[in-house]
Amino acid sequence: MDRKKIDTYAKAWVKEAGERLKKSFSEELTIETKSNRNDLVTNLDKEIELFFRHKIAETFSDHKVVGEEAMEANYSNVSGVVWIIDPIDGTMNFVHQQRNFAISIGIYEDGVGQIGLIYDVIHDELYHAIKGEGAFMNEQRLPMLEEVEVSDMILSINATWIGENNRIDPSILTPLVRDVRGTRSYGSAAIELAYVAAGRTDAYMTMRLAPWDFAGGVVLLQEVGGEVTTMDNQPLDFVNGSSLFASKPGLHKQINETYLGK
Amino acid sequence: MDRKKIDTYAKAWVKEAGERLKKSFSEELTIETKSNRNDLVTNLDKEIELFFRHKIAETFSDHKVVGEEAMEANYSNVSGVVWIIDPIDGTMNFVHQQRNFAISIGIYEDGVGQIGLIYDVIHDELYHAIKGEGAFMNEQRLPMLEEVEVSDMILSINATWIGENNRIDPSILTPLVRDVRGTRSYGSAAIELAYVAAGRTDAYMTMRLAPWDFAGGVVLLQEVGGEVTTMDNQPLDFVNGSSLFASKPGLHKQINETYLGK
Repeated sequence: MDRKKIDTYAKAWVKEAGERLKKSFSEELTIETKSNRNDLVTNLDKEIELFFRHKIAETFSDHKVVGEEAMEANYSNVSGVVWIIDPIDGTMNFVHQQRNFAISIGIYEDGVGQIGLIYDVIHDELYHAIKGEGAFMNEQRLPMLEEVEVSDMILSINATWIGENNRIDPSILTPLVRDVRGTRSYGSAAIELAYVAAGRTDAYMTMRLAPWDFAGGVVLLQEVGGEVTTMDNQPLDFVNGSSLFASKPGLHKQINETYLGK
Repeated sequence: MDRKKIDTYAKAWVKEAGERLKKSFSEELTIETKSNRNDLVTNLDKEIELFFRHKIAETFSDHKVVGEEAMEANYSNVSGVVWIIDPIDGTMNFVHQQRNFAISIGIYEDGVGQIGLIYDVIHDELYHAIKGEGAFMNEQRLPMLEEVEVSDMILSINATWIGENNRIDPSILTPLVRDVRGTRSYGSAAIELAYVAAGRTDAYMTMRLAPWDFAGGVVLLQEVGGEVTTMDNQPLDFVNGSSLFASKPGLHKQINETYLGK
């Protein structure tokens, strides 16, 4: 695959899609609720995904596309070049705040992440990485992540996972939340992953994500030495989605041993 | 008090202080840890507070100033015009993220909030209000807040308060966290209050704030019909600080009755 060419097109399309989203705030949104009431989906979500599908089909006719709105029939077959797209990551923020949402794209070849793009539209911050060439926020290179102690860390975690919930026993995470310097929750998995990659937070934990939520962020993190697994210290599931634990180097070991019993 | 004149000066000084903070990111910060390890304080915090103190003394010699860095000996006496200032609200974000922090100012006369200013420096969003004249983000008037159901609300709350902690029994808040649409935590009380005022979140709860954390936000919220009390449904304590529960109209009643037993 011609990574430079793909990257150039992907960046231009992401910016164009971002402009469309910005303009939309003066328009009425038709919001519908999907199976999960937390999962607001707008007509724009669909429109932007279709925009990418058309552009990709036009320019790279042999590439596959995986997105939230329309799964490929052959999705379980991840061979070849696959674009894994979340047109609006953080739709609840998009609807309620008109900010703190992102366009997320991961481009994988035979299952290996080659290009990652996360565009924080309103703050005009494009996080991007090509495998082996480093990660950037806009034109600024992101430094390699350095080790940090649990007591000095900022952990991105939603309060949902510390209260009674269906995914994890809250008593597992409570001691960690008590020991860290602080916790945050920004409401977009893509942005929380970009924040870890940019060193603004030190780790991010969540119990349930779809592949399009993390496909872009994983490429970013790998380029700055971040660690990404499921909460069970297993590889992420790019077909069915999974839990996710992303961190600066060394934190996985510390937290797995001391708090998660792994 | 000449509110228009004071407001004009306050806005100009806030913008000037914001420029200073933005420029600082290329400089080395001398960071010290106060009694609480969560409470990072930088030399800039002190410098900015001193900047305001000098400006205020020069221009409004009879006004008092209350700030984090230097309490007035007569602080318990809140008569006259008092500027309650947090030069960097969200110091942990300031240090770790170089964003998501704010300058917060509340100007009170005989204990009544007259002017509120919260400046999200990096995003260049100045939230401001004069009592009786409405609240604004930059030049955009913030609409009056409307009622919302608990099941539709986004609650700003830090995961700390849902785990074991010294301030509140987590089992009180767990059912609320389970029932809301989503939770967020941005890491600056001033910004979380501005977000409630701007309708981006529907409520904000925290167990411990100082007066300078909320003095500006309270004026904003009153101008858009928000409700602000302690978690015990009592008036905020502007001398010793207190817990805080800010919300859209109607949510206090719903949440107090159903979840907090008030």
